[in-house]
Amino acid sequence: MRLVVIGGVAAGLSAAARARRLDKSLDIVVLEKGEAISYGACGLPYYIEGQVGSAEDLIVYTPEQFQRERNIAVRTRARVSAIQHARREVVIESGERVPYDRLVIATGARPDAGAIRGADLPHVFALHTLDDARRLNDFLVRERPRNAVVIGAGYIGLEIAGALRARGLEVTVCEASGNTLSRQDPEFTRLVAACLERFRIGLRLNAPVRNIEAERVGDIPCQLVVVAAGLKPNVEMAAEAGVEIGHTGAIRVSERMETNLTGVYAAGDCAETTNLVTGSPAWLPLGTTANKMGRVAGANAAGIRERFPGVVGTSIVRVCGVAFATTGLSAPQARREGFDPIAARIEGQDRPGYFWGEPVTVELVADRPSRRLLGGAVIGGESAAGRINVVAAALAQPMRIDEFEQLDLAYAPPYAPVWDPLLIAAQQLIKQSRA
Amino acid sequence: MRLVVIGGVAAGLSAAARARRLDKSLDIVVLEKGEAISYGACGLPYYIEGQVGSAEDLIVYTPEQFQRERNIAVRTRARVSAIQHARREVVIESGERVPYDRLVIATGARPDAGAIRGADLPHVFALHTLDDARRLNDFLVRERPRNAVVIGAGYIGLEIAGALRARGLEVTVCEASGNTLSRQDPEFTRLVAACLERFRIGLRLNAPVRNIEAERVGDIPCQLVVVAAGLKPNVEMAAEAGVEIGHTGAIRVSERMETNLTGVYAAGDCAETTNLVTGSPAWLPLGTTANKMGRVAGANAAGIRERFPGVVGTSIVRVCGVAFATTGLSAPQARREGFDPIAARIEGQDRPGYFWGEPVTVELVADRPSRRLLGGAVIGGESAAGRINVVAAALAQPMRIDEFEQLDLAYAPPYAPVWDPLLIAAQQLIKQSRA
Repeated sequence: MRLVVIGGVAAGLSAAARARRLDKSLDIVVLEKGEAISYGACGLPYYIEGQVGSAEDLIVYTPEQFQRERNIAVRTRARVSAIQHARREVVIESGERVPYDRLVIATGARPDAGAIRGADLPHVFALHTLDDARRLNDFLVRERPRNAVVIGAGYIGLEIAGALRARGLEVTVCEASGNTLSRQDPEFTRLVAACLERFRIGLRLNAPVRNIEAERVGDIPCQLVVVAAGLKPNVEMAAEAGVEIGHTGAIRVSERMETNLTGVYAAGDCAETTNLVTGSPAWLPLGTTANKMGRVAGANAAGIRERFPGVVGTSIVRVCGVAFATTGLSAPQARREGFDPIAARIEGQDRPGYFWGEPVTVELVADRPSRRLLGGAVIGGESAAGRINVVAAALAQPMRIDEFEQLDLAYAPPYAPVWDPLLIAAQQLIKQSRA
Repeated sequence: MRLVVIGGVAAGLSAAARARRLDKSLDIVVLEKGEAISYGACGLPYYIEGQVGSAEDLIVYTPEQFQRERNIAVRTRARVSAIQHARREVVIESGERVPYDRLVIATGARPDAGAIRGADLPHVFALHTLDDARRLNDFLVRERPRNAVVIGAGYIGLEIAGALRARGLEVTVCEASGNTLSRQDPEFTRLVAACLERFRIGLRLNAPVRNIEAERVGDIPCQLVVVAAGLKPNVEMAAEAGVEIGHTGAIRVSERMETNLTGVYAAGDCAETTNLVTGSPAWLPLGTTANKMGRVAGANAAGIRERFPGVVGTSIVRVCGVAFATTGLSAPQARREGFDPIAARIEGQDRPGYFWGEPVTVELVADRPSRRLLGGAVIGGESAAGRINVVAAALAQPMRIDEFEQLDLAYAPPYAPVWDPLLIAAQQLIKQSRA
């Protein structure tokens, strides 16, 4: 019995490793189009920032380790050009055919900023692969650009903007939509903009870029452009093979990560999942979700029934030292989904004043009639991660705001004020719900 | 209509402030036996450690502020000696009688280490009030003791031990039981002991102290002793007035914080609450719980129906820079409560290795037949607070370990590894549940 996995980064390797752990006898082959496997793609902006020693530090496993320690064959530079499910074979670019009994598609996503004239100029970069990061870093060292434009104010865009700013460049971020960090919420975007301004990073909203020139983007002079807008799932090959694509544009899968083709699974940035807050299919290409989907795909491919019910949409990003964390729905998103949202935003402290408390902003969103918690945002220091996770845990239930307000959260002066900002926000939300 | 509150620290002032917010016309009087009100008692060990500028920094409000800003009369040095509920009066030590319509008892708790000979020697201190802290600090500055014994390895005991160690003293902690931090769990105590040892703090378990001499405790030479063992609720006066005392020794209250006497509420360290994991009454004297109970007592005293359902038993303490956080039940505690517990402990990292991840220990406890999560412990850096809060939020549901394993926790390299240690612990627990 052979399992073939297309893609050797987060989801693909999680699937392969999990299948191996559950079935020692399986013949497992991973086909990766690039040179490196198993690298922390989410660490790329931090490598550019200089927080990670070398690009190689991001590599968690080498193909040799996978072979030696797990008996998994990993072939790099093996780009699959077609899936022929009727024959249970994948075709590699070289023409070689690799037969399978079970298949996991983990082809990921790719940057796709639409048609931008000049996108192929030598000072234009993406930051999607380890090679991208190495090339961008080399460019920074060699060319010493003074001004940069980052296209896209999503997670990667803002992380790169912060990284370039930390390296001393003047940075302007151009975002096609009116939002940042994929959060439809003018207030949240206002807070992001204020943070960027504090670090003198320019932000232009509703500013799609269609043309890059040698020394400028529109009226902004720049010697470097990083395109971090428009991620698109790599599904074309799967679609050609008869794999069903969902409304989100990513591969439709069951809770067991199986596609409409029996024995063919999909996981990671190429696949859909369920947004547990709305109950609808969602495409949320994030590293942690990719790993989880891969793990479940691998278990099922190995014959063990496991399920991945979905996500609530939690994410966190650090921009210029400030954490921007969100989960669930913003109020505008909730309204669009048919809820009747109320939202409360408070400014609190992450510790008591006498223990050098620092500012933290907490927003909670709930549905007025059902009182169900729908989402939240936390902006602040390191503790933002823990606080957004409490909201995420509550969303998984789901939980009413009245229950949330009663949570028994840890208190000691080095870690939190006696009234945690989360609970103050909940009290405020309850007050508003009665108004 | 007059509300009298006995006690002006956490619960008492929360009650008074909340009642005022809900009813502008109420006549509110707070009677506090000490000189200061509204101070961060949990900050006292950190003041001794030198992390807080001055003892005064711990004072959040003065009586004058309460009068001016909230129209609440606060009388300090007003020790209540009796409650005469038939006459709806409290009697102050001076003999003065203060009539009430509603009464909130927030008399707190007191250190009570049992009979220790020598406890009145001048080098023996408690650390329960602001005055205690000032006196201890003066003694440290004036007498420059080299060796200290701390009696009690609970939260306050270990915080003080760390504080004294940070000030350069040789410190030995003597604990009467075999546990530390009130957690019945030999493994947890082993981890606490290892941390103390790393900072060269001595720990003697099963070592009750019954005799303090001028220069030694037993065979341990010392010029300073801090008694941090045996907290006891101040309930005698309430009991004499006919207020019912629960099996825990603290005042029995309803979810509305009302005692068996109509219109008489109790809140804070003198009152019981419900342990939501076991469903049984519990006495958990902690600052955050005191504030919450006070808030609900104040609301009900002002005629607004609110409830405080209880706690899951979350706490965190910092000892020598390491966070020890627990919530719910340990495996031995769960067994004693009639559960059939399984427990998994993992050693993880709080961030990816390439982002200077530091060690974090996570333990999760669940009930084998129902798969319900029962408790957890997190030991590590600052992020321990956020992680224990996720477990606390799950316990409030309650949640099954299979649901916990699927939590959508935030991931970005500066904040967490792609597989959060909480989820790795849950995976391990699920694996064990199948073994």
